[in-house]
Amino acid sequence: MKIAVVGYGNLGKSAVKIVKNTPDTELFGVFSRRKLPDTLPFDDILKHKNDIDVLILCGGSATDLPRMTPYLAEHFNVVDSFDTHADIAKHYENVGKSAEKGGKTAFISCGWDPGIFSLARICFNAILPDGRTKTYWGKGVSQGHSDAIRQIDGVIDARQYTIPVYDYKGENPHKMHRRECFVVVENEADKDEIEGKIKAMPNYFAGYDTSVHFVGLDELKNNHSGFTHGGRVVSDNGASAMELRLKMASNPDFTAGILVACARTAYRMNREDKIGAFTMADVPMRYLARGNIFEMM
Amino acid sequence: MKIAVVGYGNLGKSAVKIVKNTPDTELFGVFSRRKLPDTLPFDDILKHKNDIDVLILCGGSATDLPRMTPYLAEHFNVVDSFDTHADIAKHYENVGKSAEKGGKTAFISCGWDPGIFSLARICFNAILPDGRTKTYWGKGVSQGHSDAIRQIDGVIDARQYTIPVYDYKGENPHKMHRRECFVVVENEADKDEIEGKIKAMPNYFAGYDTSVHFVGLDELKNNHSGFTHGGRVVSDNGASAMELRLKMASNPDFTAGILVACARTAYRMNREDKIGAFTMADVPMRYLARGNIFEMM
Repeated sequence: MKIAVVGYGNLGKSAVKIVKNTPDTELFGVFSRRKLPDTLPFDDILKHKNDIDVLILCGGSATDLPRMTPYLAEHFNVVDSFDTHADIAKHYENVGKSAEKGGKTAFISCGWDPGIFSLARICFNAILPDGRTKTYWGKGVSQGHSDAIRQIDGVIDARQYTIPVYDYKGENPHKMHRRECFVVVENEADKDEIEGKIKAMPNYFAGYDTSVHFVGLDELKNNHSGFTHGGRVVSDNGASAMELRLKMASNPDFTAGILVACARTAYRMNREDKIGAFTMADVPMRYLARGNIFEMM
Repeated sequence: MKIAVVGYGNLGKSAVKIVKNTPDTELFGVFSRRKLPDTLPFDDILKHKNDIDVLILCGGSATDLPRMTPYLAEHFNVVDSFDTHADIAKHYENVGKSAEKGGKTAFISCGWDPGIFSLARICFNAILPDGRTKTYWGKGVSQGHSDAIRQIDGVIDARQYTIPVYDYKGENPHKMHRRECFVVVENEADKDEIEGKIKAMPNYFAGYDTSVHFVGLDELKNNHSGFTHGGRVVSDNGASAMELRLKMASNPDFTAGILVACARTAYRMNREDKIGAFTMADVPMRYLARGNIFEMM
């Protein structure tokens, strides 16, 4: 199975590593819009229509994937990890139209959340109809929150950890996580002002228990450049409970592992003429399996 | 959706309760071979072919289901919780032939293990290919082990708790669980002999850390008639880990909840002409869902 990776950020690099280390997948190459060493120019991608079995799309959900996945799904089997939860239904529709037009199979929103955690939420809801379902993320770096801090004037770099508060039993979603920020600022910057701006940022920090630590560039690099992450989905009706827990040594490696498993699935489905857009909830677990499922039953 | 329950043991009673409490399901009745009050005679079941949308089969896996499910799958959409892991592939084949012959949909081995835990094992294996996967059951009563003790001469009644040993890190499957037995014996019985027979019983107790407590019938009834259970599937590669945990207030109620969700699925699939035998790994999670899956993504 020949796989090409589109995009060469953290997730793209992890995808390349996993594709190379998986026995039944072979790396065709990496396509990038940036002129990076060892990458192929994105503009040439359609020339390779017949050389590639599946594309793994490692662009961002904010601006890249909403256009890139529908565009490419007409010409290739594709897998993406589109993670803007509120827009998945719309993305599914757009990608589905293209994939059907081209007779291709497109697997969207594959990752741990959305993805594995979505499967857990749907399954728990079906089996414990009176359960209250909560999702916890962390402890781990949120790329979106780190980026938001970097937009503030005077900030050089930042990492934001999302930390679950399991003890909290109430209903306020802002209290289920706290946020810890490590921020590098310019010498002349007003730290109090920056801390105030972070804590007041709507959607990202306002309403959360947020702590801000100002550190040097070396400390950020040495102590806060890891990719560990984790999370839980818990459903509880007071008497019975179902829970899925993840611990990840590397968030991008783990997500790339899911993308490669879904790439194998997309390829298999396309050969069975299962055409169109699919999420992980639209595909039997059998298709993701390695080996004989009866031995794992 | 009109559902009938076949078999009126613990699982059958739970299924009746859940069907009655679920808004979109209606209880047609309970079929039993025993002449119990409020049950219909099993021998009349084929007369009701056109009155029932799905049968929930609550027989035993040792002798009932291997014949009952293939027999009934030719005439009805059926759901069972066949749990002899080593024989699922054979059962799947037998049930599939009947269901195809009759144009029916048969959902087999639906429960927490096999069932939800099978999905977890397949999913974890696909995503963490180098993970070591372990399954723990308990703490909870094992019906099979309790029955095995009851076969010993001089034993009046017994309950056996399976208790996971999470601390054990080795490879010996006998050391992952210990077994605690509460046994009621006849007055003149030789307790030492009975304890020896229990601990030496092959497959069930030999090789396990087993403790035996002799108690009175009242104590057994008052303190050991609950149905709480639990379990975990864990996959760990030393750096990353995936884990599913269940805590059940009532093992039969929880299993019946899964059977009712799968009955809904079987009905839906049959109306889409998806004919034959299916396990939970053969069906997209979307089919089990209550409500709009995009809201749970």
